[in-house]
Amino acid sequence: MSVIFKKHLEKFVSIDGVTYQEVFAFFEIILVKKKENLMEEGEFCNFHFFVEQGCIRKFFLKDTGVEQTTEFALEHWWMTDTFAFERQEQSTFYIQAVERSVVLRISHDNREALLKKFPFMEHYFRMVYQRAYAAAERRIRFLYEFSREELYLHFANNYPQFIQRIPQYLLASFLGFTPEYLSEIRNKLRS
Amino acid sequence: MSVIFKKHLEKFVSIDGVTYQEVFAFFEIILVKKKENLMEEGEFCNFHFFVEQGCIRKFFLKDTGVEQTTEFALEHWWMTDTFAFERQEQSTFYIQAVERSVVLRISHDNREALLKKFPFMEHYFRMVYQRAYAAAERRIRFLYEFSREELYLHFANNYPQFIQRIPQYLLASFLGFTPEYLSEIRNKLRS
Repeated sequence: MSVIFKKHLEKFVSIDGVTYQEVFAFFEIILVKKKENLMEEGEFCNFHFFVEQGCIRKFFLKDTGVEQTTEFALEHWWMTDTFAFERQEQSTFYIQAVERSVVLRISHDNREALLKKFPFMEHYFRMVYQRAYAAAERRIRFLYEFSREELYLHFANNYPQFIQRIPQYLLASFLGFTPEYLSEIRNKLRS
Repeated sequence: MSVIFKKHLEKFVSIDGVTYQEVFAFFEIILVKKKENLMEEGEFCNFHFFVEQGCIRKFFLKDTGVEQTTEFALEHWWMTDTFAFERQEQSTFYIQAVERSVVLRISHDNREALLKKFPFMEHYFRMVYQRAYAAAERRIRFLYEFSREELYLHFANNYPQFIQRIPQYLLASFLGFTPEYLSEIRNKLRS
């Protein structure tokens, strides 16, 4: 049983030990190695993932075959192909561990059953999606508002640990830069 | 009382007439003229808006003073500055009617009270945010995946009514084009 997830849930809902055990029975805990795939494009999108420890990323393959990272999830963030998960379709993304990670996963059927049995979990997931949507809303604004250099500066100032933890080539991909361009910005800021 | 909102709610939850009246008491119905502001940047972000009829948009002012549209809401979509609404802070966006619209609004306190009194509304708002987040997730992918011309084509193919309904200068702003560039693409596609 996971103490980390219980503490995280308690930020949003009141839950006693017995109820938590029943809630947790709907989840599986999995260990993933660095660069191990949790989900692949074209695969039936059956799971919603929660990062307990580590970091995972979502990417798709461009026409050129290059991996384009669109999202990272650090500790206590959820990740899946939300559209495909709801509709129970094939995933249009890959999800892969950036570092060795401990991940909880819940299947679509289990999540439905969990929400039916414990309606207070609707409140929890409402808050999860509300915050995820708020973050996406801000991110879309930044894409209009900032130049590429400003985008990097924004990330560096607001999420310094994130910048240090993510390998530079993935960070460059996420920011829409070439790795060379990211080095250039970094050198310019240092000098 | 609004029949439109009841029908919309029934897509997600079972609700009888008496309960609906109690739910609806938490909302206000407002009529807005074309170009009338529902929310202004710097103003306390107190409302979540639901479009019954019409179309509203969200924008911010760039350093140059130009309005940058980041989002549209047509019938049955919700809109606010999600981040500021949750935290009860000043809005960082304007929300304005694109055409004459009928809008429901619920204040932050009323939404909290509604969710407390009718926990089944947690399920409704979970679904609202889940779908909004899924749409944002796909939109962020498109921004990486498509050229500007492809982005326009994608919108024109998937949302033809949207393209016809939104004034061309707003559509250009939303797509990150100049109006001239949008005309150029349109002419090129016609020829």
